[in-house]
Amino acid sequence: MRSPVRTTPPLETESTGWRIAPAAAQLRSSVIRDLLKLTEQPGIDSFAGGLPAADLFPVDAIRAASERILRDDPVGALQYGPTEGYLGLREQIAARLSADGTPTAVDEVLITTGSQQGLDLIGRALLSPGAPLLAADPSYLGALQAFALQQPQVIGFDPSAQPAGRLPAAAFAYLTPTFANPTGTTLGEDARRRLGETLAQADIPLVEDDPYRELWFDAPPPVPCRAHRPAATLYLGSFSKVLTPGLRVGYVAGPAPVIALLARLKQACDLHTPALNQRIVAQLMDDGTLDRHLPVLRQRYQAQRDALHAALRRHLDGLADWALPSGGMFLWLTLRAPLDTHRLLDAALARRVAFVPGSAFALAGTAGATLRLAFSTMPAAAMDAAAQRLRDAILSQIEQTREAHHA
Amino acid sequence: MRSPVRTTPPLETESTGWRIAPAAAQLRSSVIRDLLKLTEQPGIDSFAGGLPAADLFPVDAIRAASERILRDDPVGALQYGPTEGYLGLREQIAARLSADGTPTAVDEVLITTGSQQGLDLIGRALLSPGAPLLAADPSYLGALQAFALQQPQVIGFDPSAQPAGRLPAAAFAYLTPTFANPTGTTLGEDARRRLGETLAQADIPLVEDDPYRELWFDAPPPVPCRAHRPAATLYLGSFSKVLTPGLRVGYVAGPAPVIALLARLKQACDLHTPALNQRIVAQLMDDGTLDRHLPVLRQRYQAQRDALHAALRRHLDGLADWALPSGGMFLWLTLRAPLDTHRLLDAALARRVAFVPGSAFALAGTAGATLRLAFSTMPAAAMDAAAQRLRDAILSQIEQTREAHHA
Repeated sequence: MRSPVRTTPPLETESTGWRIAPAAAQLRSSVIRDLLKLTEQPGIDSFAGGLPAADLFPVDAIRAASERILRDDPVGALQYGPTEGYLGLREQIAARLSADGTPTAVDEVLITTGSQQGLDLIGRALLSPGAPLLAADPSYLGALQAFALQQPQVIGFDPSAQPAGRLPAAAFAYLTPTFANPTGTTLGEDARRRLGETLAQADIPLVEDDPYRELWFDAPPPVPCRAHRPAATLYLGSFSKVLTPGLRVGYVAGPAPVIALLARLKQACDLHTPALNQRIVAQLMDDGTLDRHLPVLRQRYQAQRDALHAALRRHLDGLADWALPSGGMFLWLTLRAPLDTHRLLDAALARRVAFVPGSAFALAGTAGATLRLAFSTMPAAAMDAAAQRLRDAILSQIEQTREAHHA
Repeated sequence: MRSPVRTTPPLETESTGWRIAPAAAQLRSSVIRDLLKLTEQPGIDSFAGGLPAADLFPVDAIRAASERILRDDPVGALQYGPTEGYLGLREQIAARLSADGTPTAVDEVLITTGSQQGLDLIGRALLSPGAPLLAADPSYLGALQAFALQQPQVIGFDPSAQPAGRLPAAAFAYLTPTFANPTGTTLGEDARRRLGETLAQADIPLVEDDPYRELWFDAPPPVPCRAHRPAATLYLGSFSKVLTPGLRVGYVAGPAPVIALLARLKQACDLHTPALNQRIVAQLMDDGTLDRHLPVLRQRYQAQRDALHAALRRHLDGLADWALPSGGMFLWLTLRAPLDTHRLLDAALARRVAFVPGSAFALAGTAGATLRLAFSTMPAAAMDAAAQRLRDAILSQIEQTREAHHA
């Protein structure tokens, strides 16, 4: 079945009455999504994407789970369901969080349509126009986008540093403390405790975004920040990075009254997260698929991180600095030369290699000469050649800058 | 796996820093969802629910589609996907709308996580605090809830009446023109044309919510209102009532620039609607399941409407008035005695029959002595006894009112 060929006439805003609300009008499309159209082309070795490795999706287990659920409980999977989520999944998540150092009851868990929805609900619940909001700088862009719809005043802060004085009042502090997107860094045990104390002194709740937590390589990460201040933390989790993102199942865990408020908001947003998808995830937790799958992911991503690290040492030594991430999907590169990373991206694309300029994640839009390199989807065997081409691009830009300087 | 037993301590709002945004704080849970906890109990004949009939879900076709999609294109179904939606489904919808009298291009269709999400996105795109909004009174409660988050000024209007003067300025007019929830009424062809002219004169766009359209009994409904003013209409459709609601797949169709704006908003809300679910719906359209399924639904709901009508004529003649809906799932009953319908609901529940008081759908919270009766899930054979018990409840309330009057 083909759709009819029809050109859409341009919208004449005046004559049709559309008036866009200010908060919506200022929303820009994700720089990254726009970049990805450029970078995710055949023949380009891309460090840009940040997608999970699709060849590792537990497809057979998902197919078997879907088959079984639609056979055993089709009405549960296909009829309207509770806004809070499928009870079986909420129980699994509460038990898993509890086992991981953060005791959690079922009514402290809300299932969301990906953790992106959790971020949106939290913004709607807690932010008003002009409200101050603390965010790590750089931060996950999707969070900044979701919060921007409430037009807060975003204030950058460094969660690993002791602030000189008391923090300013804020609706909440937003943080990805473990294998962060984009920096790959992890807040240590002591820093987490100190951060809890600092935020408590200023009476600021924490929004802890933790989708990469289970993708650790060398050793499990410290307990979630939520453990230090359970009544003042909303914790976001996701199955996108550990099972598959296309199912769109995530969750928020936190104090029951705040979770109940988020559920009322969610009811107005999409009634509930698809019931079939929630049951598939619950089934994969219940039958052990998730726990068997995690070591496979860790091994793959660790091997790719190691290959990237070796390639960078070989080709970018003296040109850039980076810290080795101890989990997750990202490595953050700081160039020694103060290059314009958007120009560098053009030079890199011309050499069939791609990355995301660090400025895409910066609160104020600038992040020096930094790059985010995702190592989740590039095969280890391709890393060396890709790093070499990235080196060529960097050298070409340094050369150009010198020429411009001497001209 | 059991969740740990733990009682949640009450949140001490002061000491944990949670401050709720005003728009979120005023949001109440759906009266209907609260009622349903009361009415959907074993042993109660419920006219309250308004769910589609679960025994008619095309479970085998869904299971086969899921199996096939996860076999043939697992990465497409499980990896991150485009915010606008799966192209194959957008093409199917554009073709279907075009065949139904409203020419639609692919870039005029946005897939949403149920049409509830479409309502939320539209509210966020077009409403600002205090912005006037025209809505049919009574209206679908979920729409009012979604719009309420933007704190508009909601003004009731009667879409079937010619307004005395020009309509007031408004961000948009909201309407369910076909087999409406809650009233069951349908706007005729002429009324649709006149409404288009009236709104055009006042330069007010239309938001046309049309989830019941394909559930016609006697004859297909008039072309969508959108046909009369395509550049000034956003049209919401859903697969919840014609396939299953648990998949959470709906759509918005309208002018491409407005659709693009809604897509940018959706990106911040949930990135995209689950890819597997979209592909299941596309498959069921492609393989003819939807078209074969619709007559089955129509026949069942028509038989139940007929049984309800006959039962009401037998038992409520002289006590209430109603119009026969020509499709959909709802019948709107107006009692001749000015009873309090919440008290009546108590009396009805005591007799094991349930409905939703009309006031639940009223803009100002009162709708006289009206009831919404859903005939979608009650077997035809149960209708007579249920109507008889409803009559008993009504008579008991009339008797009580008389006694109170004479006391």
